[in-house]
Amino acid sequence: MSAGSLVVVGLGPGQAGWLTPAASDALSRATDLVGYGPYLDRAPDQPGQRRHPSDNRVEVERAAMALDLAAKGRQVAVVSGGDPGVFAMAAAIFEALDEGDPAWRAIPIIVEPGITAMLAAAARLGAPLGGDFCALSLSDNLKPWDVIVARLTAVLMADFVISLYNPISKARPWQLREALLLAATIRAPETPIIFARNVGRPSEDITVVPLAAAPDAPADMSTLVMIGASTTRLIPRETGRPYVYTPRFYGAGR
Amino acid sequence: MSAGSLVVVGLGPGQAGWLTPAASDALSRATDLVGYGPYLDRAPDQPGQRRHPSDNRVEVERAAMALDLAAKGRQVAVVSGGDPGVFAMAAAIFEALDEGDPAWRAIPIIVEPGITAMLAAAARLGAPLGGDFCALSLSDNLKPWDVIVARLTAVLMADFVISLYNPISKARPWQLREALLLAATIRAPETPIIFARNVGRPSEDITVVPLAAAPDAPADMSTLVMIGASTTRLIPRETGRPYVYTPRFYGAGR
Repeated sequence: MSAGSLVVVGLGPGQAGWLTPAASDALSRATDLVGYGPYLDRAPDQPGQRRHPSDNRVEVERAAMALDLAAKGRQVAVVSGGDPGVFAMAAAIFEALDEGDPAWRAIPIIVEPGITAMLAAAARLGAPLGGDFCALSLSDNLKPWDVIVARLTAVLMADFVISLYNPISKARPWQLREALLLAATIRAPETPIIFARNVGRPSEDITVVPLAAAPDAPADMSTLVMIGASTTRLIPRETGRPYVYTPRFYGAGR
Repeated sequence: MSAGSLVVVGLGPGQAGWLTPAASDALSRATDLVGYGPYLDRAPDQPGQRRHPSDNRVEVERAAMALDLAAKGRQVAVVSGGDPGVFAMAAAIFEALDEGDPAWRAIPIIVEPGITAMLAAAARLGAPLGGDFCALSLSDNLKPWDVIVARLTAVLMADFVISLYNPISKARPWQLREALLLAATIRAPETPIIFARNVGRPSEDITVVPLAAAPDAPADMSTLVMIGASTTRLIPRETGRPYVYTPRFYGAGR
């Protein structure tokens, strides 16, 4: 039996121009692709390569299946949107490895990074992440809501730019609104809030609204929501939406 | 006079396999490359393309120069390591645009995202950014040290994984040690601390040390330092350094 391997590949956020050559190579070398169906559809067809599509949940089962295929000698690529290390499949792979069959520890595992959604959204807007920033998942499937509230409060008070991943879903309809109402108790009403949906895809839709209006703005599970810091600024343009940026300097640091 | 343009290009963290096709295209279309000399050296030679190397400081002057070239009709690429929106040139461009010649606002400006250092370092290690995380610059050139301490304290208390950019330089020799000593008052002595130097280059050097030993570990301006959360775990390997990952679940969320 030949030695198997596993690579966790980040596709970036949609457009082919953001897929790194290293990630492309990893996809083409794989005998088996494992991942959420729509992500697999973004990998070029390759004769003889097996595809194992799954839905967008049960990540640990998918991870265990991928490790098992690699243990059987397959060259497995686990495919993630964006960056696999940011609220995606890489952590699930290592959770499964940590708790699973000790034989899996002999499998060579590589992670190929990708452009995560907040970097792509930021690029489209200007430089909203120009200062200190954080990334917080609003999903309370894996951590209690009170932890999310405590973390959000801490970074709001400390004036980080905040990227909210997994802001909303059918099963979690109220969390985003609650988060934005909390933000409004700490940041000014005119703070820019970015709603970046499907960045890099034909259906890309990006809007910038003041915090006061944000709790009523539409969002879905394909939206990345970004909360500006007190220093985040708009530069109006004659046409189109304004640039959004956060200066590098802060307070007396200028 | 033909219409000029400006693109801020992220090269990613060193290796060619991490340079996106969109960033490659942007470099090849430019008539003028502006940026820190060693970054310009990573762009392929192209006949007729002008290069404007600078040192690694005076970002706003460099930004103004680039905008001025674009205003004169040149196709300008401003080159950044990693992602240009993360403690790099994009914010400097928009600072200059916001305060500079109003005519500059007619210039089409695009930002091409790249793999930022913390994503590349995380990929090399496993999935240390698997939970909520933040990125904080330790440079007190642009913000007061007391703001940095307040922000660091907030995210330490709220149990984020923390990536420290610009941890140390000749002019800022003590800040990293202070930051790690502060971390040691809040997080456990065995918390994994990652020192990732020159990720993606031949001189790449990555070490993982417990927080108790971290204040005395070596680092330089090419090092990305990552402070694990309370849940960040090691998976030992028979050879080489351990995998490092942060589970997606937290507390009662499991």
